[in-house]
Amino acid sequence: MTKGKLVKNAIGRKVPLVVNGVKQVPFKGVGRYKPHGRKAAPPIRSCVDYPKGGNKIVKNLSIALKKCGLKDGMTISSHHHFRNGDLVMNQVFDIAAKKGIKGLRWFPSAAFPCHKPVIKHIKNGVVDWVEGSLNGPLGDNASRGDMNGTAVLRSHGGRWQAIQDGEVHIDIAILAAPTADAFGNATGDRGPSACGLLGFGLADSIYADKVIVVTDNLVPFPCVPWQIQGQNVDYVVVLDKIGEPEKIVSGTTQLTKSPDRLHIAELTAKFVQATGIIKGGFSFQAGAGGTALAFAIYLKEMMKNAGVKARFIRGGSTKYLVEMLEEGLTDFILDGQTFDLEGVRSMRENYGHVNTSPFTSYNWHGKGNFASMLDVVVLGATEVDTNFNANVVTHSDGKMLHGIGGWQNCLFSKCTILPIPAFRNRIPIIVDEVTTLVGPGELIDVIVTERGIAINPLRKDLIKATKNSGLPIRKIEGIKEEIDDLVGGQPEKPKLSDEIIGIVKWVDGTVIDSIYKIVE
Amino acid sequence: MTKGKLVKNAIGRKVPLVVNGVKQVPFKGVGRYKPHGRKAAPPIRSCVDYPKGGNKIVKNLSIALKKCGLKDGMTISSHHHFRNGDLVMNQVFDIAAKKGIKGLRWFPSAAFPCHKPVIKHIKNGVVDWVEGSLNGPLGDNASRGDMNGTAVLRSHGGRWQAIQDGEVHIDIAILAAPTADAFGNATGDRGPSACGLLGFGLADSIYADKVIVVTDNLVPFPCVPWQIQGQNVDYVVVLDKIGEPEKIVSGTTQLTKSPDRLHIAELTAKFVQATGIIKGGFSFQAGAGGTALAFAIYLKEMMKNAGVKARFIRGGSTKYLVEMLEEGLTDFILDGQTFDLEGVRSMRENYGHVNTSPFTSYNWHGKGNFASMLDVVVLGATEVDTNFNANVVTHSDGKMLHGIGGWQNCLFSKCTILPIPAFRNRIPIIVDEVTTLVGPGELIDVIVTERGIAINPLRKDLIKATKNSGLPIRKIEGIKEEIDDLVGGQPEKPKLSDEIIGIVKWVDGTVIDSIYKIVE
Repeated sequence: MTKGKLVKNAIGRKVPLVVNGVKQVPFKGVGRYKPHGRKAAPPIRSCVDYPKGGNKIVKNLSIALKKCGLKDGMTISSHHHFRNGDLVMNQVFDIAAKKGIKGLRWFPSAAFPCHKPVIKHIKNGVVDWVEGSLNGPLGDNASRGDMNGTAVLRSHGGRWQAIQDGEVHIDIAILAAPTADAFGNATGDRGPSACGLLGFGLADSIYADKVIVVTDNLVPFPCVPWQIQGQNVDYVVVLDKIGEPEKIVSGTTQLTKSPDRLHIAELTAKFVQATGIIKGGFSFQAGAGGTALAFAIYLKEMMKNAGVKARFIRGGSTKYLVEMLEEGLTDFILDGQTFDLEGVRSMRENYGHVNTSPFTSYNWHGKGNFASMLDVVVLGATEVDTNFNANVVTHSDGKMLHGIGGWQNCLFSKCTILPIPAFRNRIPIIVDEVTTLVGPGELIDVIVTERGIAINPLRKDLIKATKNSGLPIRKIEGIKEEIDDLVGGQPEKPKLSDEIIGIVKWVDGTVIDSIYKIVE
Repeated sequence: MTKGKLVKNAIGRKVPLVVNGVKQVPFKGVGRYKPHGRKAAPPIRSCVDYPKGGNKIVKNLSIALKKCGLKDGMTISSHHHFRNGDLVMNQVFDIAAKKGIKGLRWFPSAAFPCHKPVIKHIKNGVVDWVEGSLNGPLGDNASRGDMNGTAVLRSHGGRWQAIQDGEVHIDIAILAAPTADAFGNATGDRGPSACGLLGFGLADSIYADKVIVVTDNLVPFPCVPWQIQGQNVDYVVVLDKIGEPEKIVSGTTQLTKSPDRLHIAELTAKFVQATGIIKGGFSFQAGAGGTALAFAIYLKEMMKNAGVKARFIRGGSTKYLVEMLEEGLTDFILDGQTFDLEGVRSMRENYGHVNTSPFTSYNWHGKGNFASMLDVVVLGATEVDTNFNANVVTHSDGKMLHGIGGWQNCLFSKCTILPIPAFRNRIPIIVDEVTTLVGPGELIDVIVTERGIAINPLRKDLIKATKNSGLPIRKIEGIKEEIDDLVGGQPEKPKLSDEIIGIVKWVDGTVIDSIYKIVE
């Protein structure tokens, strides 16, 4: 947890200046913070210190960790391509506990409910804090103030940025790999535990001091493709089973069956159609939420009817996107994360299904990225205010239960739409003030609810384009008022302590908001 | 040129301690020099400074160079995938000359006869020196002492190492790309000027301050595959024609028709067979020289007869290797450079024809590389001494006419064989002392000539394995004596000045030998 002096940042949120002992820069406005200096520089290695024949296999994880010099206070990283099916990282912390190691920072690209056992290692001091998306129990635990350090939430692009810029130095990266060779070349697109790609571990492989590849499908050199390059790998460990790929289809990645949400998805597709965005060579990204998936299905029908082919779709890929690729409705899926096994198969089989990384797609501190090239992107949110500022990490009760994912990065698309239900459990989604501000309203163009569509006044072009569309376009304040009337007004403010249990980074590494301990 | 104090290095060659103003480490022995410090760290960039829509096209090369801040004394790099068919770099130096720029260092992965016009820019001071392989006229020119700076010859792996380790800082990389999109994603495997891959420009794209992609085949975003990633690219320039791919088949890459060399190639294949190396899952690399190509063809027949399939072959790829892949005689070609258009086609079409880079294949300052995993490698040489030390960069007349290529890197294979004719133009190839020592004898296992096969005494295993093979295995001294008798003794020593016009780097960045100005 972080206590002490807070300052108000450029969007009016109070944020700390030091977190986990590291100086922070408060958010300065979109595009206002310019980085300086040079990228992180990993140590120069020599082939002399690696086996000439290329065989880097060691007997087990414990030996690999020892050879990597595991010690108190280190930063251990991992990727989340198995989502809720990861079988490696709990073992790692059990081994660390056995070795009597204390004070680790776990730096996953995301943690899932399957990592609940890590809570005991937080309690016993093996893990000081988790720095990464905290989905479910670990987030709940952190919200209660039970983590020694402070959570730092970053977008996928922000995680690459933080590693690349040297904000986060990784001592040991542990990369679960569905197929690998003894040299450390590794891929996610094949093998019994195939999870698609390994892009979330790519920065780790490049910048970490030591890299361990853990596989349950060892193949003779060379493992092709090599999504992770053996030249960045120190040790290879073979386990019986590294993950349950069927569990990558978890949580948010199910198509909605709710009539309200289907209606919202349809409205969203109709809105996109009305703007004229759907034309030959266009591009879109739809997140993994149920409504976003339904949107993609409506869009597909519109494209078929109009005879329109997209140039590219950004994944998280699902069977719905794969169908579009295989039916010729898009030239490419540029995929950062497969959300089901059809996505995995397609990535392996289709030239047009392309493996991307947070570097190519999202890194704000690069020479451009893919996110800003998207014609339209459809995302979720837990709360939105009437200035279009939005929240994806906490609920209205103040609990930090979700990661940012690529959400912040995607806001840079040419048209960002949040289709959201007007209320959840009688709690309105359009609020006076978001519990946590994760995305600045100036980047959020459209809110679609079952009670109407609100266009950000900044987007005069969209307002004009859809003027005579017959769609229920309304002022956001009007929609809010109607919902408030319906559910009996705004919810009570969550009871929050003044202790900060987490911060939210903006894509440039500055701090956009703080997350507070809940009072129970 | 370099004058002044020389020191004797670990292999007894005199080398300078400062070259082009940069301190040098003399060669310390194979595997004896351990690097320290951290890799080069490129500046952190921000998407704010790059076009949101991803369009980085500028009107022409001159504008791109201006935007990159071209100024006196900069280092300009390029790749040599077009070999003798490059149409870009002469234009670059013509533009620099027009702008009145002086004192550039050109840092190509290799220069070819087509770059002869650069000589005039050396004379007029636009280019201070060329640091890279100098094949043909530029090497000849440098040998006469006509370059302001000193040539620094590096292997392909050594070039990656030098960039990665910060020994060579590239200000502007100019990457000719047969296909690219406006964002800078680029590939060599397709387009009217397809040259296969762009691996020799990969380090440049990652580490240079500024990167210009030059293409004659602009495709809508995304260009897939992206061998060069647009996130590393600053500007894109479209030209009518960037290269003549038919000229990648140049110089060394023709199959020999000489009966003597065919005999040597056959002897080499028989030797490899006798050692027992040819077995299921083995690997080999044969260079692009005519004899090496002939060796591959003999080997292929042996493999077919024995029913043996290789796991991988390392390219430079040619139609001969592609045939082996497509006939199922190997699972993979791991290719660093396509040497003909069949190689280009195969790389585009075959999953098993894999794009590699000097990082994966050769970089000595990585966590291992592919070169040391090869079961056998067959290379050329201009001279060999009786300690098996070999030369590939100068001729017996002292002229520096060839680059090192991957030659030094390949010496780390499990069995390194040099098939060489006993003499060329009545000049014996086995010499008392090599003009330039490029490869230490301890890494060279076998010399094959038409007058017998010499095995390095260090390789007792090979001597034993081939003892009863019936092959003409002899002591190297005996072969030398016979040749000397035949041609009338060793050639006259070349007339060399004490001025150093070039140095030869070892794979670890240390200096293994000096190259002297010829006296005419």
